[in-house]
Amino acid sequence: MKDHHSSALFTDLYELTMAAAYFENHYAADASFELFVRSLPKERGFLLAAGLEQALEYLENLQFCEEEIEYLRGQPVFRNVSGAFFQHLAELRFNGNVWAMPEGTPVFGEEPLLRVTAPIIQAQIVETSLLSTLAFQTMIASKAARVVMAAEGRNVVEFGSRRAHGPQAGMLAARAAYVGGCGGTSNVEAGHRFGVPIFGTMAHSFVMAYEREEEAFREFQRLFLDASVLLVDTYDTLAAIDKIIRNDLRPPAVRLDSGDLLSLSKRVRQKLDQAGLNDTRIFASGDLDEFTIADLLARGAKIDGFGVGTALATSKDAPALGGVYKLVDVQSQRGILYRAKFSEEKATHPGPKQVFRFSGSDGVYAQDVIARANEDHADAIALLRPVMRGGKRIEPAVRIQDIQLRAREELAKLPLGCRRLREPEPYRVSFSQQLQELSATVRQQVLNGA
Amino acid sequence: MKDHHSSALFTDLYELTMAAAYFENHYAADASFELFVRSLPKERGFLLAAGLEQALEYLENLQFCEEEIEYLRGQPVFRNVSGAFFQHLAELRFNGNVWAMPEGTPVFGEEPLLRVTAPIIQAQIVETSLLSTLAFQTMIASKAARVVMAAEGRNVVEFGSRRAHGPQAGMLAARAAYVGGCGGTSNVEAGHRFGVPIFGTMAHSFVMAYEREEEAFREFQRLFLDASVLLVDTYDTLAAIDKIIRNDLRPPAVRLDSGDLLSLSKRVRQKLDQAGLNDTRIFASGDLDEFTIADLLARGAKIDGFGVGTALATSKDAPALGGVYKLVDVQSQRGILYRAKFSEEKATHPGPKQVFRFSGSDGVYAQDVIARANEDHADAIALLRPVMRGGKRIEPAVRIQDIQLRAREELAKLPLGCRRLREPEPYRVSFSQQLQELSATVRQQVLNGA
Repeated sequence: MKDHHSSALFTDLYELTMAAAYFENHYAADASFELFVRSLPKERGFLLAAGLEQALEYLENLQFCEEEIEYLRGQPVFRNVSGAFFQHLAELRFNGNVWAMPEGTPVFGEEPLLRVTAPIIQAQIVETSLLSTLAFQTMIASKAARVVMAAEGRNVVEFGSRRAHGPQAGMLAARAAYVGGCGGTSNVEAGHRFGVPIFGTMAHSFVMAYEREEEAFREFQRLFLDASVLLVDTYDTLAAIDKIIRNDLRPPAVRLDSGDLLSLSKRVRQKLDQAGLNDTRIFASGDLDEFTIADLLARGAKIDGFGVGTALATSKDAPALGGVYKLVDVQSQRGILYRAKFSEEKATHPGPKQVFRFSGSDGVYAQDVIARANEDHADAIALLRPVMRGGKRIEPAVRIQDIQLRAREELAKLPLGCRRLREPEPYRVSFSQQLQELSATVRQQVLNGA
Repeated sequence: MKDHHSSALFTDLYELTMAAAYFENHYAADASFELFVRSLPKERGFLLAAGLEQALEYLENLQFCEEEIEYLRGQPVFRNVSGAFFQHLAELRFNGNVWAMPEGTPVFGEEPLLRVTAPIIQAQIVETSLLSTLAFQTMIASKAARVVMAAEGRNVVEFGSRRAHGPQAGMLAARAAYVGGCGGTSNVEAGHRFGVPIFGTMAHSFVMAYEREEEAFREFQRLFLDASVLLVDTYDTLAAIDKIIRNDLRPPAVRLDSGDLLSLSKRVRQKLDQAGLNDTRIFASGDLDEFTIADLLARGAKIDGFGVGTALATSKDAPALGGVYKLVDVQSQRGILYRAKFSEEKATHPGPKQVFRFSGSDGVYAQDVIARANEDHADAIALLRPVMRGGKRIEPAVRIQDIQLRAREELAKLPLGCRRLREPEPYRVSFSQQLQELSATVRQQVLNGA
């Protein structure tokens, strides 16, 4: 099964017009680009890197098929471009080098998540896909980490596929949510493709398909035994609990999906306990997010697990990260030219970078320094690692369970302030002296030269 | 190329556990489900139906492959389920009937966009994919229609693939944005697959790759002639315009991507006109949406076209529609049972429905009535049409240009008030007398029976 994200045609047209211009001008330098998020969205104290596995799969499989080349040839914009360019595209494979932060690494604004060094045409064409792949999963993993923190150890299941931005987005969101700490997803394809644990209950339609609610409950319970979760809000939540008790169904769990979850959960817990169903857990869903979950638990809701849909699968309060992919150097015959952009609001820093993370004496991360790639800071962790050389992966894919574990361990080392759900304290990120000096030098060159 | 959205495994686990329960209980009725959006997001006066083509492709190709069946068999939740159920899944194809609103139809809260009637297992399994496909494209087409209205006849190009929720979301957003009235997209794959016109300019990296800005401009202009759009804000926008004039480049267009677009566009226009470059158009991009575009134009910005990215490709101010898919009838041996849900905030209406749209004497749409499917309202347009019978399409796919045209014509018939960008007037939607009577009857039956 060929994935959409392996098609080289998933790119912005300007990547290809620029490629044509480089080709026709015999501009054949290697170039380095860095991918980063300019600043954290509102109420986010950290991001959690995710999506690298899909980004590397994309780069490994990058290719235009013949039919795609024909389509491009037929576009009026290319009418002045030589046949040799299309031949070049037909033969194009990604053979560059990539450095990246491992998935599950906490990351902050301005910090490169990934650096590509490759012939400039290749490095340029992959921009659109790398951005949409890495920024999306990073956004969802970050949201998931917040929701999981709010649930204070209770299981959180990602339920949002139906509200995701199309089927693939639903599947990738399920993966990223697991990286961020969710116990699993309702999305079966994500289970199959990525090894994410899958969870499910029942829908209102199942209850409605039977003439009597208890009939639906009994049939489901009989078949699924200890995996049965009975949905109790189709008609009247408390009446449904009474039917469960009266019919001695003893389900492992019930799900509340509407109404006042705080008071309903307390009354349901009380009814269940009074009937000796102390082991029946209460699972809640319905327009939940990290704020409603934190609020419910703070007010004593009797809820043992949460299904979170729309807010998680779309990162609803911050549905886009300002991810960018910026040229930082060009390696021409005349040597390395460091590059940066100096327009008013959108300035960047030149040259390949490394992110150094420093811990305090308590083992808690204290600050990051964005530095030149060749700097040495022996007392810090260098977050960017080589992941691809000459277009080949350096190491095999990491198991998703290990990514989740890494994320949990790394998040636990962040200062508490930056993990707050509301008004988090900014984590300290600065630029190294050497990088600032390079910026100043390049800025001066550009102002003189350009 | 098999698409993600053709895999039957893209579904929520509960669809499959319910399917197993129906199968094991020999519950083999046909059922009807309706897909609708509960209510319009903030600041939306209408939605624009989109995504039906992908929904029908999905239904036509619905199938579990052998490896997927093996994965399901291995899931602990199914350990009590018979082999016959998995055989049933392996042979499952969609052979139901579908009614739907054509793409490009304005639609409002509570109005069914689509109705599926099929054996209950089939009808249930397709829920997740149909929702994510139809709700996402409908959301983006609706956003695009707003952005296009704000641009008052100027070209709007969808630029958001890099900020979309993964590659497929970017491609589908490009399609939906075109349905909503955009002139095209930057996404080349959307151009190839869907026939959406593609547009592109140049990136800052191209300017930065050359030592002198005018060198980059000249090389690009030489190759792309009347398709060249020069990006002028890499270093200093007005200085770049001076270089263009001094070097006599005469590009067909320039692009502003940062800074104060209002004052910059006026000063750039003035410089270009003074130099006799009256035909050079000004194209603007950079965190635009319908509100910033309307504001720029109201204040006299000299902008001839807009590139809109994040806000459009993610519908950023309303990144999810509350799309639902609800059981409305079950056709068992004992006859038709009408079904609805009566929980507090989430009640639905039973039975298959039709949406009737009434016009005033001026030809402007005046109100919609959601009615029982068999009602007759000779003076209204019935919006739901049969699109699939026995799992086969009734008519071939509609050309996307024709969908866009239909959308434009239909939107023009909406009352002006509901097309306002801010605080639109609600369009009048009511439920027919017959449907209300059916609701009351079913409600009473359920309260007595359940």
